[in-house]
Amino acid sequence: MHHRNAVVIDLKFARSGVVEALKGAFPGREVIDMGDPANAGRDLSGVPYAVVWKPDPALFERARDLKAIFSGGAGVDHILSAYELPDLPVVRFVDRSLTDRMSEWVVLQCLTHLRAALPYARQQRDRVWHEISPQPEARDVTVGVMGLGVLGQDAVRKLKVMGFDVIGWSRRQKQIDGVETFDAAGLGAFLARTDILVGLLPLTSDTRGLYDASLFAMLREGGALGKPVFINAGRGGSQVEADIVTALEKGVLGAASLDVFEKEPLSPESPLWDLANVVITPHAAAASDVGALFRHVERQIDRFEKGEPLEYVVDRSSGY
Amino acid sequence: MHHRNAVVIDLKFARSGVVEALKGAFPGREVIDMGDPANAGRDLSGVPYAVVWKPDPALFERARDLKAIFSGGAGVDHILSAYELPDLPVVRFVDRSLTDRMSEWVVLQCLTHLRAALPYARQQRDRVWHEISPQPEARDVTVGVMGLGVLGQDAVRKLKVMGFDVIGWSRRQKQIDGVETFDAAGLGAFLARTDILVGLLPLTSDTRGLYDASLFAMLREGGALGKPVFINAGRGGSQVEADIVTALEKGVLGAASLDVFEKEPLSPESPLWDLANVVITPHAAAASDVGALFRHVERQIDRFEKGEPLEYVVDRSSGY
Ligand SMILES: NC(=O)c1ccc[n+]([C@@H]2O[C@H](COP(=O)([O-])OP(=O)(O)OC[C@H]3O[C@@H](n4cnc5c(N)ncnc54)[C@H](OP(=O)(O)O)[C@@H]3O)[C@@H](O)[C@H]2O)c1
Ligand SMILES: NC(=O)c1ccc[n+]([C@@H]2O[C@H](COP(=O)([O-])OP(=O)(O)OC[C@H]3O[C@@H](n4cnc5c(N)ncnc54)[C@H](OP(=O)(O)O)[C@@H]3O)[C@@H](O)[C@H]2O)c1
Repeated sequence: MHHRNAVVIDLKFARSGVVEALKGAFPGREVIDMGDPANAGRDLSGVPYAVVWKPDPALFERARDLKAIFSGGAGVDHILSAYELPDLPVVRFVDRSLTDRMSEWVVLQCLTHLRAALPYARQQRDRVWHEISPQPEARDVTVGVMGLGVLGQDAVRKLKVMGFDVIGWSRRQKQIDGVETFDAAGLGAFLARTDILVGLLPLTSDTRGLYDASLFAMLREGGALGKPVFINAGRGGSQVEADIVTALEKGVLGAASLDVFEKEPLSPESPLWDLANVVITPHAAAASDVGALFRHVERQIDRFEKGEPLEYVVDRSSGY
Repeated sequence: MHHRNAVVIDLKFARSGVVEALKGAFPGREVIDMGDPANAGRDLSGVPYAVVWKPDPALFERARDLKAIFSGGAGVDHILSAYELPDLPVVRFVDRSLTDRMSEWVVLQCLTHLRAALPYARQQRDRVWHEISPQPEARDVTVGVMGLGVLGQDAVRKLKVMGFDVIGWSRRQKQIDGVETFDAAGLGAFLARTDILVGLLPLTSDTRGLYDASLFAMLREGGALGKPVFINAGRGGSQVEADIVTALEKGVLGAASLDVFEKEPLSPESPLWDLANVVITPHAAAASDVGALFRHVERQIDRFEKGEPLEYVVDRSSGY
């Protein structure tokens, strides 16, 4: 019945979405869904493919015959940093829909702060009719995007269309039409020009704790928004939340939008929840569409079985 | 000293902005600023140009020698409907910056509702970490833009880049790449496809009271957002606020963003202020930049004095 190689699934996503998406996925293959308690003790030897998001650490010991690991999300820090991984290709999830959703979130956050949506919401609560001014327009504000990968480049393009002045930073300098770009060594010059900082970096040993007090102090002061704004939808491990709180309280930062946190879910004790100009979303900027994920994995397995190279394979040495 | 024709200014805008912008404006011309009490009793005969926003009704009797009237904003209902106007060309304000700002506001509001920013803000207030689902993406949602003039066409283009499915409606049907368009007679078909309705219409006798219960009832039900959303940044006179309130309370509408109101400022008594999924801004979607306004008027006066036709002249019979 299953004439093709099996796939083991260990996705710590909302259960109903996984179950729904599995219907009809991976035709001809046995699918072992570790979310189903019936599979708890299953022999996983001989299974070549695993699709994982924060998997059971024992998975990689039990599935000894894996040939490729597919990450359930765009980031791979959840597996690279947390497990003793076998030396296998790790494929990350790249998807039009995920990219589009991230850009929706990034543009929404940049416009929210540009157009003073939070101060206006407070006025609305108090039934106050008052035009907040000055109201700079997008072209008066420089958005600095850190990370110019799949997500960063799409966000840059859409922020430009909305009128923002956009600059970008990445490890290896990029060429993007109409966008001034900086490489790792140009960090200081990049930050000194940035009014709204957008973080779309992967979490690696180089980016851990990067967004800290010393970095915030390097952002442009007195730009069109008055104070710099910090937006992060990369990974929470890249930010020092105690420093974000202090920077907001001291006015080094004027506002922030955070989708990711050092520890998720964010503790109800965190002072971030109710600082005045802060938007908190629960790691929902660009949720993986599980159906799209399975189609992506099927395409990659097909390539692999035809002897073609896998795409989106992570560079284990750089960590993303 | 003033070797060129005089200009009278009657702009009910924030006073400091007008005073600031007047410095250096209209070189070589006498400028009579009616906001300055010293000019209250001034003889205005012989003055050919007036730049106005909600001017003193007596202005048009006193300035009997006007040759052209320049509106301080994109809309002209504030003068066409409120005064016995002399039969003179009325020029409206068209400006890149005003257009860009309106599109910022429109895209911000569409993304706000697409990405459930108001429900997320309530969760944040309650320190609740919970991913709201399903989360449709922009391409699953049809934004129907009513009014495809200078503002509507720019908004359409930017909404498309953000991924929305966009359709448009105007009196005379338009040709816009990748956008299905409807003319006045196609209103029913247009509304039946619309999940987010964006109003960018001028206020005329035809558009007064257009956004009412019967129109809301024609919007698509059960689209990707569940319930239709109403967004208006045209003119408040086009909406029936009692019907908006009822539609929101009964669930005919799921959410709204309003920048304009039947009577401005919006009364502190209005129930709109604190309905759950409503965004209220104080007619600030695209404030006129007074400096840009004066430059636009100077350009038009130059054309006029060279014998070239004025641009952006309002069609008095259609009212916009
Ligand atoms: N919040 C969410 O819902 C969500 C959803 C999806 C993804 N994410 C996060 O977003 C991250 C980015 O995704 P992506 O698909 O755009 O990744 P990507 O295509 O791999 O791009 C990563 C970018 O970061 C740059 N970079 C990495 N390390 C750097 C360093 N040390 N210094 C400077 N630049 C560095 C890379 O530079 P080079 O171009 O020089 O390689 C590249 O431009 C993911 O890793 C994930 O953590 C979050
Ligand atoms: N909230 C704010 O801050 C703010 C700022 C600026 C402007 N506004 C408002 O926005 C309005 C639109 O500005 P604009 O510069 O885009 O104006 P515009 O260039 O004159 O365009 C008006 C559009 O509305 C359409 N239209 C007019 N009457 C109609 C009717 N009865 N049925 C169907 N369509 C009709 C026109 O159709 P045709 O193409 O067939 O002529 C045109 O597409 C202004 O009038 C003003 O009231 C608000």
